[in-house]
Amino acid sequence: MSQETVKYLLPESEIPTHWVNLLPDLPGDPLPPLNPGTMQPAGPDDLTPIFPMGLIMQEVSPEPEVEIPDQVREAYRIYRPSPLYRAHRLEKALDTPAHIYFKYEGVSPAGSHKPNSAIPQAYENKQAGIDKLSTETGAGQWGSALALACSLFDMKCEVFMVGASYDQKPYRRAMMEAWGATVHRSPSDLTDAGRSQQEHPTGSLGIAISEAVEVAAKDGGTNYALGSVLNHVCLHQTVIGQEAMAQMAMAGEEPDVIVGCVGGGSNFAGLSFPFVRRVLRGEAKTRFLAAEPAACPTLTRGAYRYDFGDTVGMTPLLPMYTLGHDFVPPPVHAGGLRYHGDSPMLCGLVHHGVVEARAYRQNEAFESAVRFARTEGILPGPEPAHAIRATVEEAEAAREAGEPRVILLGLSGHGHFDMSAYDAYLSGSLEDIEFSEQEMEDALARLPEAPALA
Amino acid sequence: MSQETVKYLLPESEIPTHWVNLLPDLPGDPLPPLNPGTMQPAGPDDLTPIFPMGLIMQEVSPEPEVEIPDQVREAYRIYRPSPLYRAHRLEKALDTPAHIYFKYEGVSPAGSHKPNSAIPQAYENKQAGIDKLSTETGAGQWGSALALACSLFDMKCEVFMVGASYDQKPYRRAMMEAWGATVHRSPSDLTDAGRSQQEHPTGSLGIAISEAVEVAAKDGGTNYALGSVLNHVCLHQTVIGQEAMAQMAMAGEEPDVIVGCVGGGSNFAGLSFPFVRRVLRGEAKTRFLAAEPAACPTLTRGAYRYDFGDTVGMTPLLPMYTLGHDFVPPPVHAGGLRYHGDSPMLCGLVHHGVVEARAYRQNEAFESAVRFARTEGILPGPEPAHAIRATVEEAEAAREAGEPRVILLGLSGHGHFDMSAYDAYLSGSLEDIEFSEQEMEDALARLPEAPALA
Repeated sequence: MSQETVKYLLPESEIPTHWVNLLPDLPGDPLPPLNPGTMQPAGPDDLTPIFPMGLIMQEVSPEPEVEIPDQVREAYRIYRPSPLYRAHRLEKALDTPAHIYFKYEGVSPAGSHKPNSAIPQAYENKQAGIDKLSTETGAGQWGSALALACSLFDMKCEVFMVGASYDQKPYRRAMMEAWGATVHRSPSDLTDAGRSQQEHPTGSLGIAISEAVEVAAKDGGTNYALGSVLNHVCLHQTVIGQEAMAQMAMAGEEPDVIVGCVGGGSNFAGLSFPFVRRVLRGEAKTRFLAAEPAACPTLTRGAYRYDFGDTVGMTPLLPMYTLGHDFVPPPVHAGGLRYHGDSPMLCGLVHHGVVEARAYRQNEAFESAVRFARTEGILPGPEPAHAIRATVEEAEAAREAGEPRVILLGLSGHGHFDMSAYDAYLSGSLEDIEFSEQEMEDALARLPEAPALA
Repeated sequence: MSQETVKYLLPESEIPTHWVNLLPDLPGDPLPPLNPGTMQPAGPDDLTPIFPMGLIMQEVSPEPEVEIPDQVREAYRIYRPSPLYRAHRLEKALDTPAHIYFKYEGVSPAGSHKPNSAIPQAYENKQAGIDKLSTETGAGQWGSALALACSLFDMKCEVFMVGASYDQKPYRRAMMEAWGATVHRSPSDLTDAGRSQQEHPTGSLGIAISEAVEVAAKDGGTNYALGSVLNHVCLHQTVIGQEAMAQMAMAGEEPDVIVGCVGGGSNFAGLSFPFVRRVLRGEAKTRFLAAEPAACPTLTRGAYRYDFGDTVGMTPLLPMYTLGHDFVPPPVHAGGLRYHGDSPMLCGLVHHGVVEARAYRQNEAFESAVRFARTEGILPGPEPAHAIRATVEEAEAAREAGEPRVILLGLSGHGHFDMSAYDAYLSGSLEDIEFSEQEMEDALARLPEAPALA
């Protein structure tokens, strides 16, 4: 065993003072979201019923950096800066000359990177006089993060939890309730949307979004909060990459490749965008590798088109890779990666070849996650397990090439609330569920009419 | 909100190089463990069938400090040094002039302080040529920690898990299995002890200990590992208090009172013993407050006597406060605190008035834990919830006295695997189970004949 440093820690004073806004750096023409009724660019007025102006201005900001409010930095101090680890033990187990680093966001009280955006979203709403937020949650990560953030800013939080998850994950529900949130099983009988969907008793993320948006739209004191996809969410997550950049400098290394998992894209954006900016500006030659589930292969198999962000078609049209807004991904354990689209900013980078994407089956992802747990100690969540799989491939490629490549992995969260998935993997009962090409093609055929993307 | 520091972090180079052995500092006459057959002091020969000589020498060491092996320090680097927090938000919520600090051990991959001893126990056994460890687990914290430690040293791990916990906590079992351990439901049909207890299908810690000890005693390549009570376990845990002392110095404060929860005593010993040494040597005037469950009030209601460490009477007789070795505590959610006795070293300090003890009901403990979660973000385990209750009392006493007392709280672990207890508390169905005085008196009447304690 080596006596080299394992963890690179920054003091609280090194929590970033600004978020990195990649919007002005993006290659190609700007692709605004469209109002589905008029096909004109959606403006702030399309969003004010459910978002505060502070977040809307962040969503469309042309500034390369956005200052982080003091109270947000103060709340970040509960768990930030997060540690960067050198994975000496995993490297040894893989017999690779690669240097593997991972940035670990599981140290947040909610167990993932999600509070990085939940905290500023709660703060901006509080500043706007809003005292309650509504949201949906599937796997439970986002709902937990928003419940935590609302408790820190003394706000109410109402979470519509997908029925199947509500039944299967009572501990995630209890976590949200411990932080003071009210959690409803969706479809509920509290909203028109929920009442209209009682024939789907297990619910879906689309139905839960509809319920949460309805609550926000009908109540002037309540706003809605979204945990991924949108520009302002990606913006907030860039604290991850900025810290990682400072920590890699402490280690005296520069990443050759940065690897992360993608559901809606906020985790990947958070780690990579500060590094992507350097590449777009010609200051570095980093590769970027996005790992997604083969059961929901948005970036690797989707169409690059305008589509709705939600299932029932209530949002503006977003320019993105999509499997079709009413495509329902199979129920793999990486619930956080089951989304038909992805962040428009990230999709643009994939479209322009800045970011590569690969899809992995859940058994190969869990095989790598167990290998990681038995060497590095930390039990990864099912979502970053996909990124670990990609990291193992990159480390093996480095061994075959005989090159000491530097890999930076985003470990977005722990798996403490996903042990049933480990149980299934270890007992051999985890299935590699195939997504339905026919269903995807049918869903793509139902895409709304909209201008083609360049 | 204040901009004062929230977290005090130490670099890896500040992981202690030695453990603090309080044995030579203890007040009063030495009280050796006794061989129950001869009533003579138990020596190394009584322990060699199940423990390696390296640990036995630590158990009886007269040295004030014991060096930490390099490979143990290397493994500690996965999660150590652990953070010390200033609880600004809790202080504000309590409107107290007290300064509340907490040392957080939930950052270990197993989620508690237990790996601090599991790692050196695995290491010493590995050095002695042992390739497998057996143990028992109730709440699952210790079994998880040993499974982790064995994975790090490439050893096998066999865990006998109390039947009721095995059924109720499948995620804890899955966690151990993810680290490669084999987990048996106890009573099992794999041991004589287990086969003889099939009429108690839900099992007990006593039965599980018997099974694990039997496996170790019968197999030359297998040893047994215990997660608390014994001197060497308390010794290993003193990394907590040494780091906390350095971190309190960073904060420029000296604790007036140190608070921790007590089950077998290793967590409390770990945080407090380095500070206790200074008090015993006349260098400080710190108070020490041990928090235990009212359902298992060993330190506050037990008899100070020689008793067996296990339920069925296989261990040497230990000098301690005890409720009687065959007293079965009611099934409160703080499973880690359900032990009939306590560390002899800690009991001696209570007996000599160095450490105070208080007992709390589980509803008041959870009330304080929820208050903590909603201010500090972190969800405490049910065990440290008792220490948080005591901290709140101390903070309120400081307010009443108008004194800016400095409180140092040991937050031994998170509650991610105990959310059903939060669920019960929040839904109003958590019971304040009373322990049975009659059962305790009956159990005390069955204490083995042994010399009285001074």
